[in-house]
Amino acid sequence: MCRWLAYSGTPIPLADLLYRPAHSLIDQSRHSRLGVETTNGDGCGVGWYPDLAPEHADGPPEPAVFRDIGPAWSDRNLRELSRCVRSPLFFAHIRASTGSPVQQSNCHPFRYGRWLWMHNGSIGGFAQLKRDLAVAVDPSLYPSIEGSTDSELMFYLALTFGLEQDPPTAVERMIGTVEAVGERHGVPNPVQMTVAASDGENMWAFRYSTEHASRSLFYSTAVRALRQMHPEMEVLQRVSDETRIVVSEPLGDLAGAWNEVPESTYGIVRQGHDEMQPLTPKRG
Amino acid sequence: MCRWLAYSGTPIPLADLLYRPAHSLIDQSRHSRLGVETTNGDGCGVGWYPDLAPEHADGPPEPAVFRDIGPAWSDRNLRELSRCVRSPLFFAHIRASTGSPVQQSNCHPFRYGRWLWMHNGSIGGFAQLKRDLAVAVDPSLYPSIEGSTDSELMFYLALTFGLEQDPPTAVERMIGTVEAVGERHGVPNPVQMTVAASDGENMWAFRYSTEHASRSLFYSTAVRALRQMHPEMEVLQRVSDETRIVVSEPLGDLAGAWNEVPESTYGIVRQGHDEMQPLTPKRG
Amino acid sequence: MCRWLAYSGTPIPLADLLYRPAHSLIDQSRHSRLGVETTNGDGCGVGWYPDLAPEHADGPPEPAVFRDIGPAWSDRNLRELSRCVRSPLFFAHIRASTGSPVQQSNCHPFRYGRWLWMHNGSIGGFAQLKRDLAVAVDPSLYPSIEGSTDSELMFYLALTFGLEQDPPTAVERMIGTVEAVGERHGVPNPVQMTVAASDGENMWAFRYSTEHASRSLFYSTAVRALRQMHPEMEVLQRVSDETRIVVSEPLGDLAGAWNEVPESTYGIVRQGHDEMQPLTPKRG
Amino acid sequence: MCRWLAYSGTPIPLADLLYRPAHSLIDQSRHSRLGVETTNGDGCGVGWYPDLAPEHADGPPEPAVFRDIGPAWSDRNLRELSRCVRSPLFFAHIRASTGSPVQQSNCHPFRYGRWLWMHNGSIGGFAQLKRDLAVAVDPSLYPSIEGSTDSELMFYLALTFGLEQDPPTAVERMIGTVEAVGERHGVPNPVQMTVAASDGENMWAFRYSTEHASRSLFYSTAVRALRQMHPEMEVLQRVSDETRIVVSEPLGDLAGAWNEVPESTYGIVRQGHDEMQPLTPKRG
Repeated sequence: MCRWLAYSGTPIPLADLLYRPAHSLIDQSRHSRLGVETTNGDGCGVGWYPDLAPEHADGPPEPAVFRDIGPAWSDRNLRELSRCVRSPLFFAHIRASTGSPVQQSNCHPFRYGRWLWMHNGSIGGFAQLKRDLAVAVDPSLYPSIEGSTDSELMFYLALTFGLEQDPPTAVERMIGTVEAVGERHGVPNPVQMTVAASDGENMWAFRYSTEHASRSLFYSTAVRALRQMHPEMEVLQRVSDETRIVVSEPLGDLAGAWNEVPESTYGIVRQGHDEMQPLTPKRG
Repeated sequence: MCRWLAYSGTPIPLADLLYRPAHSLIDQSRHSRLGVETTNGDGCGVGWYPDLAPEHADGPPEPAVFRDIGPAWSDRNLRELSRCVRSPLFFAHIRASTGSPVQQSNCHPFRYGRWLWMHNGSIGGFAQLKRDLAVAVDPSLYPSIEGSTDSELMFYLALTFGLEQDPPTAVERMIGTVEAVGERHGVPNPVQMTVAASDGENMWAFRYSTEHASRSLFYSTAVRALRQMHPEMEVLQRVSDETRIVVSEPLGDLAGAWNEVPESTYGIVRQGHDEMQPLTPKRG
Repeated sequence: MCRWLAYSGTPIPLADLLYRPAHSLIDQSRHSRLGVETTNGDGCGVGWYPDLAPEHADGPPEPAVFRDIGPAWSDRNLRELSRCVRSPLFFAHIRASTGSPVQQSNCHPFRYGRWLWMHNGSIGGFAQLKRDLAVAVDPSLYPSIEGSTDSELMFYLALTFGLEQDPPTAVERMIGTVEAVGERHGVPNPVQMTVAASDGENMWAFRYSTEHASRSLFYSTAVRALRQMHPEMEVLQRVSDETRIVVSEPLGDLAGAWNEVPESTYGIVRQGHDEMQPLTPKRG
Repeated sequence: MCRWLAYSGTPIPLADLLYRPAHSLIDQSRHSRLGVETTNGDGCGVGWYPDLAPEHADGPPEPAVFRDIGPAWSDRNLRELSRCVRSPLFFAHIRASTGSPVQQSNCHPFRYGRWLWMHNGSIGGFAQLKRDLAVAVDPSLYPSIEGSTDSELMFYLALTFGLEQDPPTAVERMIGTVEAVGERHGVPNPVQMTVAASDGENMWAFRYSTEHASRSLFYSTAVRALRQMHPEMEVLQRVSDETRIVVSEPLGDLAGAWNEVPESTYGIVRQGHDEMQPLTPKRG
């Protein structure tokens, strides 16, 4: 499986979350505590939306993506980038392959236009289901698929079902489709996923598995509340109230900082009030 | 486009053809004379059938494949391998991508069971045709597709149409299918190919393009004849009469050594009499 | 040999020079016109000083470096980076190895503290001279050498001789040292170089070879003059008068845009008046 | 640190030891039990002497080396090679870097002429000692150093001190030199090592550390004795009495199969009687 991290808030250098925390994502690449594997060494990637001064910005821009096939812990380019690139919204991912080749086109995050997508988990019996799922992708989107993972196919199914218009419904239909195809092929519990998606303005996080035993997913406590709990933490003065982190596993042991996303739930991180809602697969 | 080389005959170290000749495949990786590009630096690969002593051999074995994403000219592992591995039947390929990612799963040769396949050329308008072609692959074969190239898809279409039973007919039906799909999408001249395929005993080479202006392809003169023409060449004493090389472009300037494979033609290299036959696309 | 590009001026995305021009550095990676080899496919790299808003800047910061072992023309991470990173001072380099391994630590630019360095050319008879040159590096600097190239060793020799205090003199002493060591070992014409160096504020470019037949080096015409020559070029309105580019070979055919750096000469690009001076090796 | 395996005996496919055993070297790359790190994911390598039929053999040949920068567990080329290459004497190594870059030239085994060398451990305070150690290498050998590791430098020091003539003495002098240089720089306990070396006929294994707390090292029980203990194990019928394996940690839990090499000891594996001797650093 994999580990990931999604950030939205005051622009910061990526390294502040990827390298600095005690149990940072880079630390998790060798010593994951809550993952299926302790090692996540089959590639890594970051996707970020530029931190543009207002005079350069006309609408949310296409994000940049850096993906590499080596383990994150020894990736010097990732370290350089993370130190020098500041972003108000970024994704980071470390991969533990469940079988598909270790190659850049199989590394997360995936990008389509303004959208980023990353995934932890798998589609059960993927070899059996793959063709039916690929055929369900909109023919106009099909040629853009570059890799061979279940994760990327889930992205293109969600795009097929309207990710750009209504992300929660599109993901619910994607799940429903995978479950229907799984049923047809006699594959039990085909969906296992935590997913993050963004269009550069909002960020969605999804936690779901057919068997209702999903991979771990956590979100950070509201900054305003954290400041009261930890007045000694100077960093909390520097980030805005809107700042939010979603992670496969907590980045440290700060009391009160991390909250589990419930089973079969999705959350929206956006300007104003964030919220969580139940996630219900939709057939058809 | 790409360059390739296929060898069948007396077991030799791969390096004898990949590195030693004046205009070896490694030289062609930087200085191709007849290719569309002079540089073929987007990965490389070799596939070889083991040179087994009779006591180890029970039937032709699965070939081994080495593929790497760096240019052949600086690939130290390829050089080591080529020096130390002897084989009676091997393929070598240097890639010039026409757009799909530079990754091992897109490098040639491709393998399925006992079969090797490599390709120079492209499918015109591949982005448009890809989905229809993928759907035409037998569902039981579909999950084995690992990369994203037109070349690998041509292989799986040929397998779908019976490559393992009757290679020429399978390739003719593959071509016919690509042309039919191309027609449906209004893509002119969709097929451009030289292809080599082998099951470990025989070797087939195909030259074809819809527009009848195919990439170059050459075969070596029969060893028996070459020996008479060049009694001074000691190497010709050491290889059997059955030895044959097929290449995208000649490995040197030895007079009389290389012969062009005609347009729309395939050849069989096998124990006994090799032969060439016309290649005719088959619809349906 | 190699090709390189150094930019100082109005902050721009790296891609504006690496990808956009007709004969961009990426184009030169496959089709160099003035290089020893047409192909520069043995790795690539960029180094850039961050474009910091005044409130973030306290003194010129350490530059970031991205280096990769694949050819520049197919490097997706380089393309992403170049599109999204803006910088007022950056270096870019494409490598053609003269023998040392293709690995990140042999890719340019090299960095030491605030300094960047890149090189085109070679030290003649390097295998013979290498040990004496390594021993001449200051022992406190020696452990920072990471790769195995002549280029990096020239950097550390220049650092040893005071690059951080007086770059031209340090480079002249570096050259003198290499020539003295070459003489001792009977190696004729040991130095062949064009070099760029920067501390984040100023940029130096050096052209020199013992035999006075140095690799090509060009600098862009002053923006103020170019604007008068080409009032139709809108881009020239957007960059400051201080903007300057130094390149191994011109990025296009714009009349009057490119001027050759004379033999045995170095130039300084800085706030205010740029200038060129003769470069004279210094022994001892 | 790292893990390694050295084999001498009846020619076998490398995969029989690298992939098949319950706790194979590939398994150790993710789940080392006795190493400093559980993960050994910073590159891998194999070196093998060809299994030549007598008619091809004139003296022990130069070994072949395959080295790659990705983790062993996902290395498809390593898997292919290991399946298809048979050898009577081979080394395999998985790396956990202690700081030097992940690049092929830093992967083990290292080769010089007919010699292979690999290492687990480190030189303490290497950055401080590196220059003095490099200067101690014979000037004629110095240019052959390609990487930046302590391990390769130990190899070249051993070569300097006569590895090709008298391996134990050369290694004792290498250790003595490192300890003397360490003393001079105030570095305590500079040597930590298990090392394997071979000339293609014999194999030497060394276990030593200045502090007498060396990394683990095991050798396999004599085949003749193992056959009596485990008459049910059919594989033992197929390998010769001379067959021996030396490993950083046991490949499985077969009772009686593995014996620890004592502290400060080296062993010779050769035709006839293998033996172990004390290892004593030699100054000067």
